[in-house]
Amino acid sequence: QEITETKFGKGMLNLVAKDSSWSVKFAPRIQFRAMSQWDHDGDSYGKPEQNFLIRRARLKFDGFAYSPKLKYKIELGLSNRDISGANQFTGNAPRYILDAVIMWNFYENFELWAGQTKLPGNVERVVSSANLQLIDRSLLNSRFNIDRDLGIQIRHHANLSESFIIREKFALSQGEGRNIVSGNLGGHQYTGRIEVLPFGEFEGGGDYVQSDLKREKTPKLMLAATYDYNDDAVKTRSNLGSYMFTSTGLYKTDITTIFVDAMFKYDGLSIMAEYANRDADAPIAVEENGLPAMDAEGNPTGDVVLTGNAFNFQAGYLFKNNYEVAGRFTNLSFDPITGSDNSEQYTLGASKYIVGHKLKVQTDINYTSRGGEPDNIEFRIGFDLHF
Amino acid sequence: QEITETKFGKGMLNLVAKDSSWSVKFAPRIQFRAMSQWDHDGDSYGKPEQNFLIRRARLKFDGFAYSPKLKYKIELGLSNRDISGANQFTGNAPRYILDAVIMWNFYENFELWAGQTKLPGNVERVVSSANLQLIDRSLLNSRFNIDRDLGIQIRHHANLSESFIIREKFALSQGEGRNIVSGNLGGHQYTGRIEVLPFGEFEGGGDYVQSDLKREKTPKLMLAATYDYNDDAVKTRSNLGSYMFTSTGLYKTDITTIFVDAMFKYDGLSIMAEYANRDADAPIAVEENGLPAMDAEGNPTGDVVLTGNAFNFQAGYLFKNNYEVAGRFTNLSFDPITGSDNSEQYTLGASKYIVGHKLKVQTDINYTSRGGEPDNIEFRIGFDLHF
Amino acid sequence: QEITETKFGKGMLNLVAKDSSWSVKFAPRIQFRAMSQWDHDGDSYGKPEQNFLIRRARLKFDGFAYSPKLKYKIELGLSNRDISGANQFTGNAPRYILDAVIMWNFYENFELWAGQTKLPGNVERVVSSANLQLIDRSLLNSRFNIDRDLGIQIRHHANLSESFIIREKFALSQGEGRNIVSGNLGGHQYTGRIEVLPFGEFEGGGDYVQSDLKREKTPKLMLAATYDYNDDAVKTRSNLGSYMFTSTGLYKTDITTIFVDAMFKYDGLSIMAEYANRDADAPIAVEENGLPAMDAEGNPTGDVVLTGNAFNFQAGYLFKNNYEVAGRFTNLSFDPITGSDNSEQYTLGASKYIVGHKLKVQTDINYTSRGGEPDNIEFRIGFDLHF
Repeated sequence: QEITETKFGKGMLNLVAKDSSWSVKFAPRIQFRAMSQWDHDGDSYGKPEQNFLIRRARLKFDGFAYSPKLKYKIELGLSNRDISGANQFTGNAPRYILDAVIMWNFYENFELWAGQTKLPGNVERVVSSANLQLIDRSLLNSRFNIDRDLGIQIRHHANLSESFIIREKFALSQGEGRNIVSGNLGGHQYTGRIEVLPFGEFEGGGDYVQSDLKREKTPKLMLAATYDYNDDAVKTRSNLGSYMFTSTGLYKTDITTIFVDAMFKYDGLSIMAEYANRDADAPIAVEENGLPAMDAEGNPTGDVVLTGNAFNFQAGYLFKNNYEVAGRFTNLSFDPITGSDNSEQYTLGASKYIVGHKLKVQTDINYTSRGGEPDNIEFRIGFDLHF
Repeated sequence: QEITETKFGKGMLNLVAKDSSWSVKFAPRIQFRAMSQWDHDGDSYGKPEQNFLIRRARLKFDGFAYSPKLKYKIELGLSNRDISGANQFTGNAPRYILDAVIMWNFYENFELWAGQTKLPGNVERVVSSANLQLIDRSLLNSRFNIDRDLGIQIRHHANLSESFIIREKFALSQGEGRNIVSGNLGGHQYTGRIEVLPFGEFEGGGDYVQSDLKREKTPKLMLAATYDYNDDAVKTRSNLGSYMFTSTGLYKTDITTIFVDAMFKYDGLSIMAEYANRDADAPIAVEENGLPAMDAEGNPTGDVVLTGNAFNFQAGYLFKNNYEVAGRFTNLSFDPITGSDNSEQYTLGASKYIVGHKLKVQTDINYTSRGGEPDNIEFRIGFDLHF
Repeated sequence: QEITETKFGKGMLNLVAKDSSWSVKFAPRIQFRAMSQWDHDGDSYGKPEQNFLIRRARLKFDGFAYSPKLKYKIELGLSNRDISGANQFTGNAPRYILDAVIMWNFYENFELWAGQTKLPGNVERVVSSANLQLIDRSLLNSRFNIDRDLGIQIRHHANLSESFIIREKFALSQGEGRNIVSGNLGGHQYTGRIEVLPFGEFEGGGDYVQSDLKREKTPKLMLAATYDYNDDAVKTRSNLGSYMFTSTGLYKTDITTIFVDAMFKYDGLSIMAEYANRDADAPIAVEENGLPAMDAEGNPTGDVVLTGNAFNFQAGYLFKNNYEVAGRFTNLSFDPITGSDNSEQYTLGASKYIVGHKLKVQTDINYTSRGGEPDNIEFRIGFDLHF
């Protein structure tokens, strides 16, 4: 057995080459949880469904290669939840790669990214699933986020004054999500995001980490907006959701997704607010002749772009003993043509950060309503182990 | 190229943090083999079927995190045999994770386990496939074992006298096996195991390693019994086997599995004996109206819980030159309602342990009968490479 | 963060045990590319199809175990292109393992290989996809190569004079490709290859690396020929291609594949030439009664072994600044019974080797004709990152 200087939570490998020609941080992580859910049948809550789940299990490599100006990130999913989603467009193979991207600081404050990684969408999505203050992300995120894609990004940041920072991010993507091997369908996806930090940088990249584990000494704020245009999109949630097949191929329509979000932290208090909106040129999938889209058997598919908007607000307070309480309210309002029920969710959670986000135990309870009626109550408890 | 103090067989990484905040042993391993099988057609043995197979290929991480009291194990399967078994309950994704579990020594001799790992079933199953003295496990194991599952375990051990050790293990599990993402079906699974070591601990955890590579100076014995109750089980072999579908969902019945087993080692001699029994409340899958279970097309499924019992006995002797000869006898007796033939198998094997179980060459020959008639003869040869 | 002596491109781990009992080089690599293709519709080229792709993403472990005479290699695929190809013969699981092989130098210049790895086929195939001078391999390779298989190999080399080297390689394989778990179908596959290096070894194993990155000071040449016989083959391209099903099982015929190839390097110039030929005993799949093979519904499968021959020639010149220009011409001539169009392809490419093949940017343009008519033009640009 050999001795390593690396502390717990800093990677299993955390190396930099003597000649500064490369570095790596390699870390596995797992998330395990137990869940109990009581469904409401219109009259009352029934008996609970209980289950255990390895929600995420991942291997991550990041660092720089050749020069500190050329960074890379490779993240692999291991759990069945991470890798599911195989279909003909992924070569009927599991979706093992989450990120495989290089980030090249080619000029001053400019970076060029190439590969597969998260698009510059809503802040909640871009926060790593390892750094959440509740057991999982919100319903806003699950219905509206624009996830990962293949393509290139240009990123820039500037200090407009000593503390006023502005960041611009632009992505050109294939537009059908991650791990696609069948080439581009429809058109490309274009994403722009602008972020304003009027009071300076967050400690330790805290604008993209939930919970104020750094206990910011002065208030820190990020205000941001994303505009995403998916030209001739073929899936119901832009680059996510299901493919909209017709009897002759795929239905294509232009889908626009907008996010406005904010992250605020001060002295243990953390607040995140998000608004999302999705619109489509012609949301209902139709055949070339304008009749409803049909499958090969001639039955209507009923496919429709999930248009509508959503609001999510969450706040947490971290006590001195590294216990945190956090609450969340999420509201989803879909356009009537989608046939989807509006939904609200209230979440109350507690976390014990034993070693920050690297070793933590979390629990939360969720009350969800659909179409104004009680839908279910869910209780969750789990842990994160992250090297 | 850098120098490592770690010797072959002690992991590719074998690190402990200077501040004792974590440790890891990381090791890949592969098992390759060639097999020839002669099937008996009732009159004589036919021409051999020959094949090559990567039977297992794995990556394993284990050690402790944050404190030596919090251990972890992550084991990943790589070979097609390791990861097959995708179905709708695994997210139609391969079953990549074998173990993902934390083991917390929360109080004195008590440990709490949480995650996915092997249940405390028969000793042969819990012995790692890397530590077998014949090329693969017995038929008892393949038909009766209770494998891995998702859930929690409580483990305790006590020294009743200087050398008399008793261990108790209890597991609460989901009850449908590993890598399930669709939640719990039917009820939970409850497993209890008690182990008695009247002559003290085996050298180097040898109670769960086949072959007496440590050449025990005094006789060592483990006697153990497992009782497993799978409430409302939905699979034909408790948490293994196939799902028992009906025209309206899944057939559920309570399944009980019992193991009684022993491991003995002394001066190069190793003996393992196992008895297994499976019973079910109502083994034949039926519709709610009591008629035989039918599939969607209205054909009877014929699903029945594989009830019956089995006996397995094996012994090996390790010569001074690290060659070992081992023999095995296995008898399977199924209940008549299962429609499964009883079976017997005789195995004779030889191993050369070049570096213990880490680098070895093994061969064996198996004679199998079914329903009292010759069934097949199989010859196997292969190697293990384990860092 | 700890300091490592290993330089970029020499692995993330590059260790040798102090007691010389093992070594490992562990390296991940990724290949990302963007492609535009203009298809010709008979009259003119249409609008381009554009797409982004993670073409390859891999983890490789190699080194020696127990003794420098026992080498090993384990290579794992991560990208969806790497792991696709699941079917009933692979356990319906993705084909994650590329190589899992041990190489034992059991006597003088002899090596015994056992496991899964590349067969000693055409040079272009055996060159790692990490070491190509154009963005991807030729059409000759994609239609005629014999890829990887499970089995054993014997390899030998001899110096006939100070500089005249001869190498002989023989493989006995299962004959249906990699990652098979269902055992052998049809007969085995037998491969023999002989290589002659009249002017001595290439620098740094350059006979199996494209581009003359070592700028050979004297001309170096490898001339080689492979003869491959797949007894009772069941797939259309020997151990690759699709299975030839009949109404009662699989169609079997003996397939012979021959390669003659050469690699030449001198002072920045690199030339590779290959000829391939495939023949089959009875190439058209038929039922036992001699009628055309039919699927379960009674429709003819049309399966036929892809017999014919091909020629590939490519050359590159590496400038002092590590830019290279390379060109390739490939001609495919299929036997008329295959119903496949003959094809020609012209490729012109440029590479910038930033850190040899470990970090490079490549681009090429391809003009392809089929049956004498223009088929498509493809433009590709991409990078390799290889630790």
